[in-house]
Amino acid sequence: MTGGAQFTQTDAGARYEVFHTDCPARDVVDHVTSRWGVWVLISLRGNALRFYELRESIRGVSEKMLAQTLRALVQDGLVWREVEPTTPPQVTYGLTEFGRDIGEPLTELFDRITRRLPPRSAE
Amino acid sequence: MTGGAQFTQTDAGARYEVFHTDCPARDVVDHVTSRWGVWVLISLRGNALRFYELRESIRGVSEKMLAQTLRALVQDGLVWREVEPTTPPQVTYGLTEFGRDIGEPLTELFDRITRRLPPRSAE
Repeated sequence: MTGGAQFTQTDAGARYEVFHTDCPARDVVDHVTSRWGVWVLISLRGNALRFYELRESIRGVSEKMLAQTLRALVQDGLVWREVEPTTPPQVTYGLTEFGRDIGEPLTELFDRITRRLPPRSAE
Repeated sequence: MTGGAQFTQTDAGARYEVFHTDCPARDVVDHVTSRWGVWVLISLRGNALRFYELRESIRGVSEKMLAQTLRALVQDGLVWREVEPTTPPQVTYGLTEFGRDIGEPLTELFDRITRRLPPRSAE
């Protein structure tokens, strides 16, 4: 026991680095697991969505917070953004290859949590 | 295309529910993926740690935020807390079975992010 995080799997070195506040991976982890980032990534797992579709699919998110979350994910290379030159312009978001790669364990995490919790009573 | 999140895997129904703000799973997902929750769960993957060891292992977390994060994770049943009746009392935290179950995809998520990013330059 060394008083730090112990790992038995691969990439232990890389993982240690992430605990430093100045590590670039920490920013991405923070964006992925941000208040709304996780829901955006999970919502986009199936197919690309327009901004208003995303907003409808994620209950409780404000337009401002959703825009801010998407900006960070686009910057990280997890989400692509496409603007159709219509009036008004249509903006579509989808997962990049990196985003899809991340989406897998994120969905698994999600499933494991929902499986453990008691089912919601019918309304 | 229905304008909502599309899923092709199992548990799609359960997953849909989590998007509702009043779903209990959403609280747990929010705690797991909270600013510090993800680091606590990853730090505890290898072995149980004392409060001060956790604080040392996660750079940048304040004592107050760490205590708050741990309280939520204990309440969710992801982390156990043991107090040794010494002077001063020693408090140890570790992952429950649920916590270890969640830790797996969380570590995978973590690995996939760190693998994609350029290595940090040596200091």
